[in-house]
Amino acid sequence: MTLTQNLIERFVAIVGEAYALRSANDIEPYLIEPRDKFGGKTSLVLRPSNVDEVSAILKLATETETAIVPQGGNTGLVGGQIPDGSGTQIVLSLSRLNKIRSIDPAGNLAIVEAGVVLQKLQEAAAQAGKLFPLSLGSEGSCQVGGNLSSNAGGTAVLAYGNTRELCLGVEVVLPTGEILNDLRTVKKDNTGYDLKDLFIGAEGTLGVITAAVMKLFPLPKGKGVAYVGLSSPDNALQLLNMAQSHAGASLTGFELMPRIGVEFSVAHTEGVRDPLQEPHNWYVLLDISSSRSAEDARETIEAILTEAFEAGLVDDATIAESTAQEKSFWHMREAMSHAQKPEGGSIKHDISVPVARIPDFIKEADQAVLDLIPGARIVSFGHMGDGNLHYNISQPVGADKQAFLDRWAEVTKRVHDIVRAYNGSISAEHGIGQLKRQELSETKSPIALDLMRRIKKSFDPAGVMNPGKVI
Amino acid sequence: MTLTQNLIERFVAIVGEAYALRSANDIEPYLIEPRDKFGGKTSLVLRPSNVDEVSAILKLATETETAIVPQGGNTGLVGGQIPDGSGTQIVLSLSRLNKIRSIDPAGNLAIVEAGVVLQKLQEAAAQAGKLFPLSLGSEGSCQVGGNLSSNAGGTAVLAYGNTRELCLGVEVVLPTGEILNDLRTVKKDNTGYDLKDLFIGAEGTLGVITAAVMKLFPLPKGKGVAYVGLSSPDNALQLLNMAQSHAGASLTGFELMPRIGVEFSVAHTEGVRDPLQEPHNWYVLLDISSSRSAEDARETIEAILTEAFEAGLVDDATIAESTAQEKSFWHMREAMSHAQKPEGGSIKHDISVPVARIPDFIKEADQAVLDLIPGARIVSFGHMGDGNLHYNISQPVGADKQAFLDRWAEVTKRVHDIVRAYNGSISAEHGIGQLKRQELSETKSPIALDLMRRIKKSFDPAGVMNPGKVI
Repeated sequence: MTLTQNLIERFVAIVGEAYALRSANDIEPYLIEPRDKFGGKTSLVLRPSNVDEVSAILKLATETETAIVPQGGNTGLVGGQIPDGSGTQIVLSLSRLNKIRSIDPAGNLAIVEAGVVLQKLQEAAAQAGKLFPLSLGSEGSCQVGGNLSSNAGGTAVLAYGNTRELCLGVEVVLPTGEILNDLRTVKKDNTGYDLKDLFIGAEGTLGVITAAVMKLFPLPKGKGVAYVGLSSPDNALQLLNMAQSHAGASLTGFELMPRIGVEFSVAHTEGVRDPLQEPHNWYVLLDISSSRSAEDARETIEAILTEAFEAGLVDDATIAESTAQEKSFWHMREAMSHAQKPEGGSIKHDISVPVARIPDFIKEADQAVLDLIPGARIVSFGHMGDGNLHYNISQPVGADKQAFLDRWAEVTKRVHDIVRAYNGSISAEHGIGQLKRQELSETKSPIALDLMRRIKKSFDPAGVMNPGKVI
Repeated sequence: MTLTQNLIERFVAIVGEAYALRSANDIEPYLIEPRDKFGGKTSLVLRPSNVDEVSAILKLATETETAIVPQGGNTGLVGGQIPDGSGTQIVLSLSRLNKIRSIDPAGNLAIVEAGVVLQKLQEAAAQAGKLFPLSLGSEGSCQVGGNLSSNAGGTAVLAYGNTRELCLGVEVVLPTGEILNDLRTVKKDNTGYDLKDLFIGAEGTLGVITAAVMKLFPLPKGKGVAYVGLSSPDNALQLLNMAQSHAGASLTGFELMPRIGVEFSVAHTEGVRDPLQEPHNWYVLLDISSSRSAEDARETIEAILTEAFEAGLVDDATIAESTAQEKSFWHMREAMSHAQKPEGGSIKHDISVPVARIPDFIKEADQAVLDLIPGARIVSFGHMGDGNLHYNISQPVGADKQAFLDRWAEVTKRVHDIVRAYNGSISAEHGIGQLKRQELSETKSPIALDLMRRIKKSFDPAGVMNPGKVI
């Protein structure tokens, strides 16, 4: 529907003039997204302060068939939070629903609103002597509602699960404006269909999550972080199995990095240096959390590394001697994606394959990419313990950036075909949004797509929730 | 629809005469269920051997509007697997779909068909050097498909989660006969709505799960089991927090038991004895799994108990000295429900409340029950670490059994009202089935029920999947 002046005024009246943004200047930050790929337009950003205002907005949207694009911290990488180019879609920012309603350390629960910034929740949990484990590069600005809507992953999935597994219950405003209060605070509840998990990961296409019950965990009593040099992903896989066997659920991070990624991070990130003297083909960041003590964490790491050295899996390794050093090891890994930027154009993928197939996948995908683009610099790094790689490709040295980026679709098709042959996922943690919608429609099982469409239609018959995303 | 002879023949032709049961004798075992509460009838039990036969059955069912009741090991406690009394519903037994399609120890995965008995999967995992942690009293006969359809819980939820959390992907036959192949083998996959979790826990009302990808875990290198006597659920709660703080994810069981439950188990179960010399008001079974060694597990248990004794939380405790003794401690707990039978009538509940509210809940519910039925013997035991109690009530000594059982609805209403006041669940792990369908329709949020009905209608417009269950 077109957005008439009269209709705009009706929406504005719900939140009040001060929280309805209409000038290009005010609106701009809501349209600029991390990858500069999605050029959306809007003439209205609404910033409601509570669930009742969200409800009124969606009710009016459904009545008038006005498209609504929910937005959290605007850190999504697939354009799910960005309106289309028509200018008729309204952006619904959840950032003012930013209350932590309660923290219950005894019950290991926090009830938080959608607009709470992830880092604020981490800090509030820590102040209560607890851990909220979700951890992402964008944690300083992404919001819990966005984490839920995209089922965010991050570095702690290995031990604690995706955002879905961290959530016990949700409050959701349906397209009709009805408010589903499903803020359950119990871990076991078999009373009907699992509605919560339908809204989680739906990227705002079925309703708007306004609050959620999130799980808290005991704070580890000690951490241990090692930075390991090794010769191949095969060796990394064996090291992973060894680490899991020694540490069980105490293994809280296992990140794989290639030499070129370390070089990029060191070259382009202030304060990052390679802690090992000699270069190695591959690196693993090993993170252990102990429920007992720092000594215990260190002993576990030493036991893993001793066995790994004896088995010839590892060429060199160093264990962080301080919290500052732990952070600097992690900083190396976290800076890796960003450090590709000064190297020219990048074609990026967020894939997963079964963990044990990671080495084969890397071999096969690397060969395919280099066949297509000789000289391409492949920076495949990420959450190996979860089978999830950011399979990113930097342009060849000296190549034309635009000419390289123009081959995105071609390269991605090859990489994703290999992912599918390995029974993997073409979007492990970032979601579908706009970026992969077309590809999903072409490659996902028609039966699954049909079920998704049936759900979409029965929940949102007017089609107002984030149209043009996911399905 | 009525089941004409002609229609019966068409269904029989799909599986063959040998696997279509029509005589009362052959059918009887499929109608007798654990609680003798649901007197269903059928004139046909179908035993297909593969997914294509299941598909043909459902296709014909939808075409002819014939009701289908899927059944696994027939161990469900809420009548979800039992047809109604009309005789027109066909029982679809999944027991011949009993292949373990693959076990992948390196990938920590097993792909199994719905009819695999849980214990077979546990054994196959162990043979591959892995743990499949789901563990229930009925594990010798319940089937994985039933575990999934009811999102079964059990004793290992504390560390490993419900069945839902143990499953990566499913193969489902839809009411139309279409086969949804969603047998994904990756942990991270954000490509569209979470269909898997909609089928899990739907109790066969949306489709028939025919196979699933289940997660495997490293086998613990050592176990430690302690049997602890203490004075109150309050002390048990403090002990739980202490145990979680020491053991973290190594705490693999924390079961609460009242004195009367221990007395019943000892009195009525061969081989069960109370390992402590003096009687105590309450008991906790503490189960620790170490990824290092048996000594390590023992050290953890000793550290927990030492701190608990010093804090005055625990009156007495003993640690199992052998695997046989560990089993005998667990046997005490597992025998508890069954041991109520010789004591007369029982009114049983499967509730959960937030963990930290368990002591208050017990106080309030006990008072309410005793107000209603003075002399009632309350056997409230179960998975305290998950907030889940089997809040069972044995009749007063010498009371009339039927007169006691006739008060089931009245007692349950009081207990469930208190559960709801604590923001808990009236079915923590057993599901809704027939038993709690009416209550669900009266007490669940109308908005949630409406969403469930929309899903049901869009997935199963002919209404053939397990009608009369859940919604």
